[in-house]
Amino acid sequence: MIQGLGASEGIAIGKAFVLPNWEWELPEHKIDVSDLAAEFDRLYEGVKRSKSEIYRIKTEMDETVGHEESSIFDAHLAILDDPVFMNEIQGIIQRQYKAAEVAVKEAIDHFVTMFDLLDDEYMKERALDIKDVGNRLLKHLLGVPEIALPTDTQPFVLVVRELTPSQLIHLKPDVVLGIVTMVGSPSSHAAIMARAFGIPLVMGVEGKLAEPIVTGDLLIVDGGTGQLHVNPLPETLQRYTELRKLHLQTRERLQSLAAVPAVTPDGVTLELAANISSVKELDAALASGADGVGLFRTEFLYMDRSRFPTEDEQYEVYRSAAERLAGKPLVIRTLDIGGDKQLDYYEMPEEDNPFLGYRAIRFSLDRKDLFKVQLRAILRAAAHGNIQIMYPLIASLDEVRAANELLAEAARELAAEGAVFRDNVPAGVMIEVPAAVAIAELLAEEVAFFSIGTNDLIQFTLAVDRMNDKINHLYEPFHPAVLRMLRTVSDAANRKGIPVRVCGELAGDVRTMPIWLGLGIHELSLSSQAILPVKETLLRTKALECKALMNELFQCRTAGEIRERLERFHAETALAAGNVKPGV
Amino acid sequence: MIQGLGASEGIAIGKAFVLPNWEWELPEHKIDVSDLAAEFDRLYEGVKRSKSEIYRIKTEMDETVGHEESSIFDAHLAILDDPVFMNEIQGIIQRQYKAAEVAVKEAIDHFVTMFDLLDDEYMKERALDIKDVGNRLLKHLLGVPEIALPTDTQPFVLVVRELTPSQLIHLKPDVVLGIVTMVGSPSSHAAIMARAFGIPLVMGVEGKLAEPIVTGDLLIVDGGTGQLHVNPLPETLQRYTELRKLHLQTRERLQSLAAVPAVTPDGVTLELAANISSVKELDAALASGADGVGLFRTEFLYMDRSRFPTEDEQYEVYRSAAERLAGKPLVIRTLDIGGDKQLDYYEMPEEDNPFLGYRAIRFSLDRKDLFKVQLRAILRAAAHGNIQIMYPLIASLDEVRAANELLAEAARELAAEGAVFRDNVPAGVMIEVPAAVAIAELLAEEVAFFSIGTNDLIQFTLAVDRMNDKINHLYEPFHPAVLRMLRTVSDAANRKGIPVRVCGELAGDVRTMPIWLGLGIHELSLSSQAILPVKETLLRTKALECKALMNELFQCRTAGEIRERLERFHAETALAAGNVKPGV
Repeated sequence: MIQGLGASEGIAIGKAFVLPNWEWELPEHKIDVSDLAAEFDRLYEGVKRSKSEIYRIKTEMDETVGHEESSIFDAHLAILDDPVFMNEIQGIIQRQYKAAEVAVKEAIDHFVTMFDLLDDEYMKERALDIKDVGNRLLKHLLGVPEIALPTDTQPFVLVVRELTPSQLIHLKPDVVLGIVTMVGSPSSHAAIMARAFGIPLVMGVEGKLAEPIVTGDLLIVDGGTGQLHVNPLPETLQRYTELRKLHLQTRERLQSLAAVPAVTPDGVTLELAANISSVKELDAALASGADGVGLFRTEFLYMDRSRFPTEDEQYEVYRSAAERLAGKPLVIRTLDIGGDKQLDYYEMPEEDNPFLGYRAIRFSLDRKDLFKVQLRAILRAAAHGNIQIMYPLIASLDEVRAANELLAEAARELAAEGAVFRDNVPAGVMIEVPAAVAIAELLAEEVAFFSIGTNDLIQFTLAVDRMNDKINHLYEPFHPAVLRMLRTVSDAANRKGIPVRVCGELAGDVRTMPIWLGLGIHELSLSSQAILPVKETLLRTKALECKALMNELFQCRTAGEIRERLERFHAETALAAGNVKPGV
Repeated sequence: MIQGLGASEGIAIGKAFVLPNWEWELPEHKIDVSDLAAEFDRLYEGVKRSKSEIYRIKTEMDETVGHEESSIFDAHLAILDDPVFMNEIQGIIQRQYKAAEVAVKEAIDHFVTMFDLLDDEYMKERALDIKDVGNRLLKHLLGVPEIALPTDTQPFVLVVRELTPSQLIHLKPDVVLGIVTMVGSPSSHAAIMARAFGIPLVMGVEGKLAEPIVTGDLLIVDGGTGQLHVNPLPETLQRYTELRKLHLQTRERLQSLAAVPAVTPDGVTLELAANISSVKELDAALASGADGVGLFRTEFLYMDRSRFPTEDEQYEVYRSAAERLAGKPLVIRTLDIGGDKQLDYYEMPEEDNPFLGYRAIRFSLDRKDLFKVQLRAILRAAAHGNIQIMYPLIASLDEVRAANELLAEAARELAAEGAVFRDNVPAGVMIEVPAAVAIAELLAEEVAFFSIGTNDLIQFTLAVDRMNDKINHLYEPFHPAVLRMLRTVSDAANRKGIPVRVCGELAGDVRTMPIWLGLGIHELSLSSQAILPVKETLLRTKALECKALMNELFQCRTAGEIRERLERFHAETALAAGNVKPGV
């Protein structure tokens, strides 16, 4: 048995596939002076493509996995924007007449050596970031693939010297059972991502192996304890096979809740819908027993191509999602571009504070030509299912009215054309700007529903960019101000009789369950993997107790007090549930 | 009489000083290949110094004149960050081996010619921006002054071919009576600034002059009508001298209000204090009859040097301000750096969204070593006057407690050292983060006063960066959400019995007077030039009528309705006041 560092929980048992060290083939010729400018252009083009690729990965991670994971790629973007790194590369091209690839490789080596010399874990991680982003740049300059895995074998345990987030994002959990790395630490970016993907990972076994692992060795990877077994004895294999079964049973128990209605022990229903970004995510959503889709992000429809999607292209996607849901609601959020979400083919303005900038409904109301295409597609698709429209980043009634006016215009056009569509599609709004909270009473009279986007709402309320490492400890979901704003919104919705949903990351945190039940929220919209753990909590939480708890929470003066009280409540209900229904 | 474009109101009568066209002396030698890197470094250094200079001008303008004027310089910063502009310059150096100055000059000429060819007013303005910022860069590369005006003459009327904001910022209104430009438009940046400085300006007289103006000609500049008279007839001179007198009389009438107490006709006091950034601004504040200083911005104390100011340096400034105020209150805001305010000598982190970033109290609580120096200086100065402390950007009680803890520690240290200081200096907070509004009731129990910073509060509430041209039409001070937040804060303060002040730009807008009187705000803190117009409005506005008006305003559903109602009220009270006291 080899004791490594446990970096991502779970047990993997399978044959090893050892990834060979990658060697780049670099051009050896010198650049002619007259071609220097062209070489710079090649470099800039490679940087541009790398950035655009990283943007896409980051956004996809943010939407499908979570913020902590996606923010890893901010560091990569920062490196490509770093004048020191870029000047080093440019200097090598300019002064030594070397090809861009060679300059990039030499710059990577230079910084990695420099950072590695500083015997510091943080700096080593930075070195790995540089290597990762540098390799991506090389990949674009050389036109080679990122990582080459066998495609025709059984699922395997991947063995690599070190692992970068960019490599990890290309690994499929159904092919890669587990991972072993020679170097690296559980706090590394790659480890964070392995945990998000649920791939068992043991790191740092270098120097602990009697002989090198070779492809075909049978491995047992226990990412919880950090233990690695190479070609284990039959009894060890037996033991771990049992352990693995137990793990899977827990997963199955949770899975058995998929068909159970989302109702508290005292009879209060809290619908649990899914957040999706594409039709293919519907499988996972429906498998988790989602009560429909509370948030269909349409950005990816716009990102996954080289021009704006046509009305028909959008219509097909919306219709197919609505049909798959077979009557369950599908809430389509109109384009939420800008901020940190960019399109390759449309240049957004450079902004000092993009989060406070030209984005979401502001973009749509500025580009009504594009907005109307989307609205027409939604109205047509609505003839085939239970579709609702949701406008993002609404801050005023003026915006709601302008959007609804365009929606009515789209309907008039479709009617005149004799198209098949639904006329009275309910239109609701995201509540994510503090102004929308303050005027929630006014908004509730003119919209079909509220959906609270906690991520942005908390950012604006606290004036904290949660992507900013320097201050993101101030991004505090349990801040008493956040609690008060949630109450203002739910009170307004309940008074005016419209549904109120919560669709930010906060809803996936099971500790928050009493807040939703206590405030009278009607629905949570969650990532598919969060639905069952949240439902398990819901099934054991009494709504009446939550109402009482809310009174206590509103007496709390700091986030620390609120968090502490919620955690105590959570522990108590978990314990009580354990007593009543042993084994659950 | 020559009819030009009236670009800044007011009448100037005086001798012309014609500014000669500036010719740069540029180096002619080629750069040696081995010196290319050094030449790039020179360029980067020049860019860095230009940016740092623009930052300072922008911040100073923002604080002393206003946002519309300061945002002009954002365009300049953007040019220096623009890869197209910078690549053009770098390309010329690299491919033609020309000196950085020459490359900059050629790049300016290239873009200006290109933009001028597009016969479009907006593009011409962009061309002027490039010329302006390019000249600043040239200035730093060549080490020459920006604009050379006579210093030993009588005040004069400046005649220039065209005017850039950078030139204008160096003009002193007591030396430059008025300005005439050959080209340019009233919507230009320079015109905006002339209006802010109160310098009469007529533009666009090219082709309308019988013969060129020469230095020494007697000019009459009427910036309201756009009329220019060169060597006028005696009767014309007579007429304009009269007109000018009338203008000055209006100013005097306003000035006579300086000594009048700031009380409404129905006996409600609303103190009018001044915002200052340096001790020298106290003259203007006191001349306007300010009831003390409601906001002493300490940033300039930190910006005007090459290292952090020492405790003694700060102490001297605070003490001298407190002494000059002779018992009137001096509210010192602790360092509000970050966001768009930078220090030359301290590298702040690069941030994607600096407004939502590492700034103000967040910086101070992170750099407690620096913060304590400031707190000690304030406590010592407080022994010499009526000083209060104000923390900026407070979002939670945790921050207030941490700051107060450090304040107490500073006091303990001073006591142990036997220093002269005041122990119980009242400490209040800026309310400018939406979270602070939501928890105003909690905050009011732990702080000495509130001061509402409307600029940031509106930005965060609406999620709109008002510096961002693409969306700043959404920066809407009359938004119903803003009104509600102001009410939440004033209600909390009044219920808990602490004073509540307003110190953002909004308070200087006379249309807002009924809001402050209606909500029970105790004090406005204003730029010195806004105090008297605001007081004139206050003196004729009945607080009781404002309370009634507020009920109407809270029925309004959009900013447009609120603005329209406030403007009607303003027009009515102005008319009524005119009837009662003719001539006022």
